[in-house]
Amino acid sequence: MRAVDLIRRKRDSGELTREEIEQFIAAYTAGDIPDYQMSAWLMAVVLRGMTRPEIAALTEAMLHSGSVLDFSDLAGRKVDKHSTGGVGDKPSLVIAPIVAAGGLKVPMISGRGLGHSGGTLDKLESIPGFNVNLSLSEFRRVLSTCGCALIGQTAEIAPADKKIYALRDVTGTVESPALICASIMSKKLAEGIDALVLDVKTGSGAFMKKIEDAANLAELLVETGKRMGKNVVALITDMNQPLGRKSGNAMEVVESIEVLGGGGPADLRDLCVELAAWMFLLGERVKTLDEGKKLSLDLIANGQAREKFREIVGLQGGDVGVVDDPARLAHARQTLAVTAATSGYISSIQCEQLGVAGVVLGGGREKKEDKIDPAVGLEFHKRIGDAVERGEPLCTLHYNSDARLPEARGLVETAYKIESEKPKAIPPLIHRVIGA
Amino acid sequence: MRAVDLIRRKRDSGELTREEIEQFIAAYTAGDIPDYQMSAWLMAVVLRGMTRPEIAALTEAMLHSGSVLDFSDLAGRKVDKHSTGGVGDKPSLVIAPIVAAGGLKVPMISGRGLGHSGGTLDKLESIPGFNVNLSLSEFRRVLSTCGCALIGQTAEIAPADKKIYALRDVTGTVESPALICASIMSKKLAEGIDALVLDVKTGSGAFMKKIEDAANLAELLVETGKRMGKNVVALITDMNQPLGRKSGNAMEVVESIEVLGGGGPADLRDLCVELAAWMFLLGERVKTLDEGKKLSLDLIANGQAREKFREIVGLQGGDVGVVDDPARLAHARQTLAVTAATSGYISSIQCEQLGVAGVVLGGGREKKEDKIDPAVGLEFHKRIGDAVERGEPLCTLHYNSDARLPEARGLVETAYKIESEKPKAIPPLIHRVIGA
Repeated sequence: MRAVDLIRRKRDSGELTREEIEQFIAAYTAGDIPDYQMSAWLMAVVLRGMTRPEIAALTEAMLHSGSVLDFSDLAGRKVDKHSTGGVGDKPSLVIAPIVAAGGLKVPMISGRGLGHSGGTLDKLESIPGFNVNLSLSEFRRVLSTCGCALIGQTAEIAPADKKIYALRDVTGTVESPALICASIMSKKLAEGIDALVLDVKTGSGAFMKKIEDAANLAELLVETGKRMGKNVVALITDMNQPLGRKSGNAMEVVESIEVLGGGGPADLRDLCVELAAWMFLLGERVKTLDEGKKLSLDLIANGQAREKFREIVGLQGGDVGVVDDPARLAHARQTLAVTAATSGYISSIQCEQLGVAGVVLGGGREKKEDKIDPAVGLEFHKRIGDAVERGEPLCTLHYNSDARLPEARGLVETAYKIESEKPKAIPPLIHRVIGA
Repeated sequence: MRAVDLIRRKRDSGELTREEIEQFIAAYTAGDIPDYQMSAWLMAVVLRGMTRPEIAALTEAMLHSGSVLDFSDLAGRKVDKHSTGGVGDKPSLVIAPIVAAGGLKVPMISGRGLGHSGGTLDKLESIPGFNVNLSLSEFRRVLSTCGCALIGQTAEIAPADKKIYALRDVTGTVESPALICASIMSKKLAEGIDALVLDVKTGSGAFMKKIEDAANLAELLVETGKRMGKNVVALITDMNQPLGRKSGNAMEVVESIEVLGGGGPADLRDLCVELAAWMFLLGERVKTLDEGKKLSLDLIANGQAREKFREIVGLQGGDVGVVDDPARLAHARQTLAVTAATSGYISSIQCEQLGVAGVVLGGGREKKEDKIDPAVGLEFHKRIGDAVERGEPLCTLHYNSDARLPEARGLVETAYKIESEKPKAIPPLIHRVIGA
């Protein structure tokens, strides 16, 4: 195999064999193929695409570049959920304890914030002492003890993905359904799970702005997972506005605890219940989706889900006191309300701008090395379709430094579109289910 | 300027500004942009193309990455010729002395063999002692003394092209009219010339197999040269069969000396006279093309062209004895004739295969580090349209080692297609002239 021949073939829209893809990925992971050849190939993939068999081969090659965890000795089905990311997207913090409380195992390997979107690891780390960097043996111990563990990607898990992902980020080769699919699925399949629920976001705050692109990615993900013998379903859910009422790391933990306690905003609660229900169904804990929803609601109502969250926090070294007293979490020293310039109805929200505003306030990273401020964030007062009076608050910025406040404020001000007529269609929470 | 933004813009078919291209090339040449970002951008260029203003900006950025020679103090117009390469493609060796003998200056910077095609530098080096690695001051001295000098690319000439070309070769990004144009023109415009004649090859032994692709490239080259204020014309010439009767480094020098002496095969002589005539015309030495042809033929007939070649060889350290006695050049110890399997007419020739056969015999390089054997080569006995009897020789292989002889023989045997009917159309020597 000569790397340049594989690059040329893909450039000319040709297909690579499974063996060629395996050798190419193995040689790159071993350092035998330089970055400059991989990046040329990645660009050819972005512009020419990959066939389904190629995507399956790439996913497996990346999966087998590292360890594949085996939890078959632990009782109960292993299930996980993955979201493609958005603003205020915090269901992982809610559903992992719900599903573990319901008797399934949730070995969840998550990521950090990326661009305008938040990351589960950053949110968890806003809980004082919470350690997401467990070794694989600690991961197993926590999982077997309480049914759930929440960690970051380790060096053993899909090292090819780690190396390729870093390269894609700086070579303009992120936006490829084939590469996104292989990246997500190689990590998730390494978790040793039986079933996976995918939350593919679409809308102004998602990476896939168009529903057709989200559906295309969802189908790829589902097919790739099923081909590997897993129970997989994908929900295409709405990201035309933030999920819940809060974004920002500590603020999202607060809101998650509210939902676990039976409160919280309706959209967030509904999506968490729906996702948990699918996990129960795919994990064969229940026979119907409705049964799964009822179980999820029961586990919230009887306090078991909240108790499970407390247990996880404790086992991973976090301050369990925050569960009863979320005020112990970091909070910003100052707030600023962005108000409506006119009266009318919220007709649309440029949701990605709200995510960027959170990054600008220090809640996310612009460069890999950036340190994040867990306290800052945004509080959303209005949703699409809501009536609003001139001067009424749309969004409150929680901040610690006013160095870049005008920039964040400008992003928020221009994110909301107000019209005199009430919009005819409000985006549904769930657009479509694929693979059921 | 962030490199990743320029990569993404080109990936999405966007246009880069002149300033962005200048900064990008300067930063890459300085080592501030890594190879992996350049290769992703190059692949995006191959698949998305570049606009004419982008190509002009890229050419100029690469040109100004190094020195631009200035020979304005030397009397006479400075003209050059560039060929896109083929099999037996040796006119440079013939026309440089003709045009210098005619009173113009020819500061010719050439390349080495690439893939199946030969290179002027490798041919010249088959003359014992001939030094193509002159410093720029030696180049100037030889040029001012005899009106012509033949060297390779120095470190001062278009270093951006040198670096990018090496990367293109290993990342599958050679085949782009925009990149080919910028590479050729940045080097040629650095020569300080007033006029340039381009010989763009098309056919089975050319890099551009299709005449439309050759015409597209020719138009790009001519437009880019004219934009920079040069007199430029492009001839689209045939490479469906070898040029002349010989390929191989020393063997091509022999044939060139034959043409300079008034002999040699008709196709080679005709093309040399045509190209030299265009150089005389663009260099304003003559008023019409016919006058240029007559001048070229006169300079051959009166021996001045041959005398000029002897002078160049001497000034560049070569053995001038080879001009009168070409047998002093290296020649191969063994020959093998490939004969016709059936009687009929040569209907087509897979000319690239003949070039590869020459490389396999040791006359070219498969890797950059390979040492070449100047003595080996091929002698062609039949051209398209010629009648052939079963058992009659088609091509004679001149070789020194029989290690890979079967491979070379197989390539030659399958290169000739013989049919019972005489082919209706014989490819013309010159398909089209662009820019006149």
